[in-house]
Amino acid sequence: MTTETETLEERFLTYIKKISHFEESIGLMAWDLRTGAPRKGASQRSEVLGTLSSEVFAMSTSKELKGYLEGLRETSVWSKLAEVTKGSVEECEKQLKKYENIPPQEFKAYVILTSNAEVAWEKAKNDADFKTFQPYLEKIVDYNRKYTEWVGYKGNKYNALLDDYEPGLTVDIIDDVFGKLKKALVPLVKEITEAKDQPQTDFLFQPFPAKNQEALSREILESMRYDFDAGRLDTTVHPFAIGLNPGDVRVTTKYDEMDFRTAVFGTIHEGGHALYEQNIDEKFIGTPLCTGTSMGIHESQSLFWENFVGRHFSFWEKYYDLLKKNANGQFDDIDLHTFYRGINVAGPSLIRIEADEMTYSLHIIARYELEKALINGELEVADLPGAWNDKMEELLGVRPSHDGEGVLQDVHWPSGAFGYFPSYALGYVYAAQLKKAMEKELPDFKQLLQKGDLAPIKEWLTKNIHQYGKSKEPLEILKDTTGEGVNPSYLIEYLESKYRNVYRITE
Amino acid sequence: MTTETETLEERFLTYIKKISHFEESIGLMAWDLRTGAPRKGASQRSEVLGTLSSEVFAMSTSKELKGYLEGLRETSVWSKLAEVTKGSVEECEKQLKKYENIPPQEFKAYVILTSNAEVAWEKAKNDADFKTFQPYLEKIVDYNRKYTEWVGYKGNKYNALLDDYEPGLTVDIIDDVFGKLKKALVPLVKEITEAKDQPQTDFLFQPFPAKNQEALSREILESMRYDFDAGRLDTTVHPFAIGLNPGDVRVTTKYDEMDFRTAVFGTIHEGGHALYEQNIDEKFIGTPLCTGTSMGIHESQSLFWENFVGRHFSFWEKYYDLLKKNANGQFDDIDLHTFYRGINVAGPSLIRIEADEMTYSLHIIARYELEKALINGELEVADLPGAWNDKMEELLGVRPSHDGEGVLQDVHWPSGAFGYFPSYALGYVYAAQLKKAMEKELPDFKQLLQKGDLAPIKEWLTKNIHQYGKSKEPLEILKDTTGEGVNPSYLIEYLESKYRNVYRITE
Repeated sequence: MTTETETLEERFLTYIKKISHFEESIGLMAWDLRTGAPRKGASQRSEVLGTLSSEVFAMSTSKELKGYLEGLRETSVWSKLAEVTKGSVEECEKQLKKYENIPPQEFKAYVILTSNAEVAWEKAKNDADFKTFQPYLEKIVDYNRKYTEWVGYKGNKYNALLDDYEPGLTVDIIDDVFGKLKKALVPLVKEITEAKDQPQTDFLFQPFPAKNQEALSREILESMRYDFDAGRLDTTVHPFAIGLNPGDVRVTTKYDEMDFRTAVFGTIHEGGHALYEQNIDEKFIGTPLCTGTSMGIHESQSLFWENFVGRHFSFWEKYYDLLKKNANGQFDDIDLHTFYRGINVAGPSLIRIEADEMTYSLHIIARYELEKALINGELEVADLPGAWNDKMEELLGVRPSHDGEGVLQDVHWPSGAFGYFPSYALGYVYAAQLKKAMEKELPDFKQLLQKGDLAPIKEWLTKNIHQYGKSKEPLEILKDTTGEGVNPSYLIEYLESKYRNVYRITE
Repeated sequence: MTTETETLEERFLTYIKKISHFEESIGLMAWDLRTGAPRKGASQRSEVLGTLSSEVFAMSTSKELKGYLEGLRETSVWSKLAEVTKGSVEECEKQLKKYENIPPQEFKAYVILTSNAEVAWEKAKNDADFKTFQPYLEKIVDYNRKYTEWVGYKGNKYNALLDDYEPGLTVDIIDDVFGKLKKALVPLVKEITEAKDQPQTDFLFQPFPAKNQEALSREILESMRYDFDAGRLDTTVHPFAIGLNPGDVRVTTKYDEMDFRTAVFGTIHEGGHALYEQNIDEKFIGTPLCTGTSMGIHESQSLFWENFVGRHFSFWEKYYDLLKKNANGQFDDIDLHTFYRGINVAGPSLIRIEADEMTYSLHIIARYELEKALINGELEVADLPGAWNDKMEELLGVRPSHDGEGVLQDVHWPSGAFGYFPSYALGYVYAAQLKKAMEKELPDFKQLLQKGDLAPIKEWLTKNIHQYGKSKEPLEILKDTTGEGVNPSYLIEYLESKYRNVYRITE
């Protein structure tokens, strides 16, 4: 009896390990394609990626897997399974259930549709021509509406999509959280825009050689306790971090020689993602639990480091000298306070990926409200550009002059990623909550930054978040770590206090 | 009927394409591990490699594949197949036949044996302690002796091993070729060793910054018509070139800052391999024919470029200025003739990978004679170190002072690659034959080098060799291109004439 049980568990673990091995090789190919793979091999490499992805899909929906899952669920068997096995079974079941409810023909057509839509979108964006892209987006929205019915939901249709990116989160929660954020941020943006004492910024845009930026980036990553023996730093067009396994988590960045902030804050941001993946407990290797638990929790890690560490005054008390040492004299006449205000300049803008930490959430809220309305049939694609422009005016007080800098700016909708956007702002909200909780255990947070002693910060995050991989859900992590559900008040408090200070409004 | 035939062919082609996709992802992982993959992820990556390699092995020996091969061999079907399909069927059959004749348990044990043997060898080599390695090598030799019986052979047992690396070549042919080489080279080595006018070499060993060596390497690769849009150049410990597909063929090199020759000649050598893989006809992509046809023909390409181009006086008439431009003044007082003589310094040495182009073949012949004797039971492993030292004395007039610089120096035997060594010298013999044939069509070969116009050379090699991939056997390529079988007289003629000139023996 016991032997049979063990054998089934072992066979299941071998099976999912094989899936993880395929995924690791897919990950390496993806990293390679984005960091230096030769142009002429790319289309062939895409075919290889397709073959391996199909293999993963086939294995994740196979009769063999279903057999394991059913067998392991038998009461006498289940009770004896290791925790990691149980969690892996649950994760496999969840994926399987989703795949099974989607009509295969519709899924296949959708993969082709989004692939073509991305090509059409590139052109439409450059031409600022929404009309040519509209038919694609209509089909994508239509599929996503049907998708919510196939996979099912409680309450709002949009909850079905949220479940793919931020399991446990619902429209009710998000409406409340984003409502509070809006209420606080919209007037704050106005306040700082009208402030008389605007930060000086001219010194930011001076030539800063790429190789010096790289040296600086490496030194900061090391301070963060990013492990270069378990990773590497490369350049790319759209920076990302990727975890192939906890011993191989790669960071990418880019060096804008006329604006060092791109690399410095981008590297810290991706470094935050990388620390998460490097510090997942090794017991999860070879299972679907060996990754970050959600997009939002992942973003909480990157934004924690980028904003609460990297844009903190005390961080630069330590690192300003290092920055100066690597720069070509551009900060020689700039005192630390002027520098700090400069790197924290904020205000309304049109483009999300160029937005500052204060207005960023408003860009996300706009997208969330629009896509929720689309999915629920309260808004049609034909009316989206107008709705977009109105929303930008309402939240940020700016109006795009054309759709290229408006509704067409992001790749998410062309690629079919509805339900993804909220994770960005939720991650930021989580990060502020984590900061509050961390400060109870590390009351000398500020002094740690001043000393450049970032190890205790990294260790706290590992202890509370990283190590668990995907074995805990987002809200479970939040509850265990902060004792609360999603609560935007800490982020609001932080932004109000920081930006009134940066803009000398209360002074 | 026709439809059924087409379907079977198509299904077979889809099947072998999938194998090629797995192999491509294995290739990328192998490249990555050797060029910069983080240390801590390496053992996990090895597991992934193992999973994918097992998948390739399973697919290459599956009932499904056998079914295709049998079906396609039916006369009515066979006659209608495309040439590429026929060649692929033959290649699959050949591999399958080999695998089928090896007892699976023996094969599995051998994989573990060689893996452990490599570890034991590393230590034995460092300690110059043959005794600790001897038991491993005895088992490896034993397996290879049995292997020859399992897979079968005509004439000499060793022919079974040759077939894995250089199909069509036999002990009879090689004994004749290597016999002639020995007869000419042994006295030639003596002649140049005793020559009074030895080349000046002190100027070779001066500091030459790595980044300048890289710039130089890139410029030379471009001249060779290596396509950087279908490849990239990286650094590694033991340089290699790897073809993932014809659109992605990567070169690696290393920069010794006290001896620029390592990078310059190493890059040209690997570039020669890479040109082969970059210029295989696209129709072979996705089949087992999309690679070089044999180790020897591959080596003929790398050695052609390294020696007949890169060590040619006329090549440096063009490139000496470029070298000087990148160097730190080390050649300022060195005229072109002195330089040319210096880079062509030759003479007996103990270590194969450090040998010059003149003595290199003798290192190979020594290994060939020893491993042939081992396989035929004319020599036992216990007597190998002594036999090695005697052989070195006989061929090169030098005797190792310990086994670390003798019998233990190469990884080939620990890794089980018996039958591989001859390819190196055969490749050199082929290269000299190709050079002779090329000069009939390109009588201005020397002038092309002087002008740095290397495109016609590359195109000739593509036309005659590269494009065919593995669809022609080594001797077929040789016959079609040179009208001959293996003939060492051109290499002998070249070496005698060049080295008497370099050493001013006839002057």
